[in-house]
Amino acid sequence: MSKINRQWRLAARPEGLIRESDFEWREEVIPSPSEGQVLIRNIYLSIDPTYRIWMNEEESYMPPVQIGEIMRGGVVGIIEESRHSDFEAGDIVQGLLGWQDYAIDDGTGIVKLLKDVSIPMTHYLGIFGGNGLAAYFGLMDIGQPKEGETLVVSAAAGGVGSLVGQIGKIKGCRVVGIAGSDDKCDWITNELGFDAAINYKTESVSQSLSRHCPDGIDIYFDNVGGEILETVLDQINLHARIVLCGMISQYNASEPVPGPRNFVNVLYKRARIEGFIVLDYLDRVMEAMTDLGTWLFEGRLQYKVDIVDGLKNAPHAVNMLFDGSNRGKLVVKLSEEPSF
Amino acid sequence: MSKINRQWRLAARPEGLIRESDFEWREEVIPSPSEGQVLIRNIYLSIDPTYRIWMNEEESYMPPVQIGEIMRGGVVGIIEESRHSDFEAGDIVQGLLGWQDYAIDDGTGIVKLLKDVSIPMTHYLGIFGGNGLAAYFGLMDIGQPKEGETLVVSAAAGGVGSLVGQIGKIKGCRVVGIAGSDDKCDWITNELGFDAAINYKTESVSQSLSRHCPDGIDIYFDNVGGEILETVLDQINLHARIVLCGMISQYNASEPVPGPRNFVNVLYKRARIEGFIVLDYLDRVMEAMTDLGTWLFEGRLQYKVDIVDGLKNAPHAVNMLFDGSNRGKLVVKLSEEPSF
Repeated sequence: MSKINRQWRLAARPEGLIRESDFEWREEVIPSPSEGQVLIRNIYLSIDPTYRIWMNEEESYMPPVQIGEIMRGGVVGIIEESRHSDFEAGDIVQGLLGWQDYAIDDGTGIVKLLKDVSIPMTHYLGIFGGNGLAAYFGLMDIGQPKEGETLVVSAAAGGVGSLVGQIGKIKGCRVVGIAGSDDKCDWITNELGFDAAINYKTESVSQSLSRHCPDGIDIYFDNVGGEILETVLDQINLHARIVLCGMISQYNASEPVPGPRNFVNVLYKRARIEGFIVLDYLDRVMEAMTDLGTWLFEGRLQYKVDIVDGLKNAPHAVNMLFDGSNRGKLVVKLSEEPSF
Repeated sequence: MSKINRQWRLAARPEGLIRESDFEWREEVIPSPSEGQVLIRNIYLSIDPTYRIWMNEEESYMPPVQIGEIMRGGVVGIIEESRHSDFEAGDIVQGLLGWQDYAIDDGTGIVKLLKDVSIPMTHYLGIFGGNGLAAYFGLMDIGQPKEGETLVVSAAAGGVGSLVGQIGKIKGCRVVGIAGSDDKCDWITNELGFDAAINYKTESVSQSLSRHCPDGIDIYFDNVGGEILETVLDQINLHARIVLCGMISQYNASEPVPGPRNFVNVLYKRARIEGFIVLDYLDRVMEAMTDLGTWLFEGRLQYKVDIVDGLKNAPHAVNMLFDGSNRGKLVVKLSEEPSF
């Protein structure tokens, strides 16, 4: 593990896709905790589409990362030194600890995790982290799936989408996933049990949706926005629910992107479009964890983690989300896991 | 009253604003009811923006009116002759009886109205008709107003908007209306009690909204769609509710209109956009009527009806909705009211 604290700091507001020059690589002395603080060694850094939003100057749902600041990011790490009465060395914690090897925290920015060897540490950044919460509450609370309904999910092979589709199946829906490669389509139908998959890069999404959703679309779990949202809106049923979880197709846009041209269909179909952010559900985490944990250990949910090695590769890893080259939940490994 | 049955039939699909040549004027013999039917003399024809939708070829929330058919429209009339056991001559009824002097019905397309001289007959096409239901359920069910919240309503001097704002005040909201003339703005603030009004033809809607909604916008009751929707979306609060009741700005468009360019704000603000149609609430009519009736007779609601004389003027009357020259709920008077 690193003897210095290597960091990626934000150096410039990106235009379009992130470039490495949008970050500054900094190497600092590992900080020492003061009284009431802990020193954390970061082990895994979550890689999420929302990072691209945080790099913009505009206020979104959280303040932007300022130029010169350590890039914000979700991390699982281990406490190396504690001067805080609630924590001790060896505790595994999670928090927005940033793109760096080590972090200092006063206990308010971290939560302690179970040391359960049956749970891979990366799961706390995925199925038991933001991805799981987003999939669970987005689908259950906003999508409100009913047995026999048709659910369409975009970015269906991603960390959120792959869970949404599987939960939809558990709830008795017909599930159609949209993804960006034949490999991904094969995976979600053959391994995850989706009823059908559409490769949006090689198929007409509109025609394939008509074919795979003969009874129309009741729920659309949208991770991408843009053209696919518009295409889906053409085929929604009365009282359809559109769950806005992300709009990854638009995060790199430098100009505002027009909304769907068939927006009037929301009126005609008396549909509901609702945005949500997992932060809104933090007080209900246990609800989700109970169901997700049960389904996972019963073998009814599969969850794939794609691990990129080394902090140096973090900027590149974010772009993998946008070019679709990741397979499942993407994390960057910063240092070795402890053995218990 | 007419000795013949004069009718407007749909002759062509309009492009843009309606022209009289989109209709054919027909004069027919007054029909005779068969066994199980009634003959109705139409008295008032409701004029609604949705007529423009029904004239298009595309399926919306109801089938389009076919070329050659009598134009569809909501009517209050009086039964002149009954061969149906549930109705007798002199009964006042309401139904989609069309743009004509007389209609035949088998009882399934009409409902009998109270003969209460304290209720103007036109109210059944307005505050006790679709307008009242739309305002009541759209605001209460979808908008879910809470005391102290800020409600913005467009087409605020119209049949629906003027009620929405007043119900919003009854529910303790700060209410800001958007309308198309200084006269209308004066009316809704001075007479109806709106807190502020914005003339979208002479003011910057964005700047005026900022000024009149210092705490942001919690509910937007949208009757117009288009640019004003986009402007409002820029200023919504977390968990805002956008009630899509109509999109009058787009009904005359010949090309699909792009949705709001700041659509991503629905995600950032975890907002909800929901379309609805009063038809969905027919089984809950009494809920609305009870509250609306109480408020009306307590003097807490005002409702203005703008009466255009003569069936001949019906096509022109529809365009008055789009150029904004109506004042309140618009109806066309087809024949004389009976005296009770």
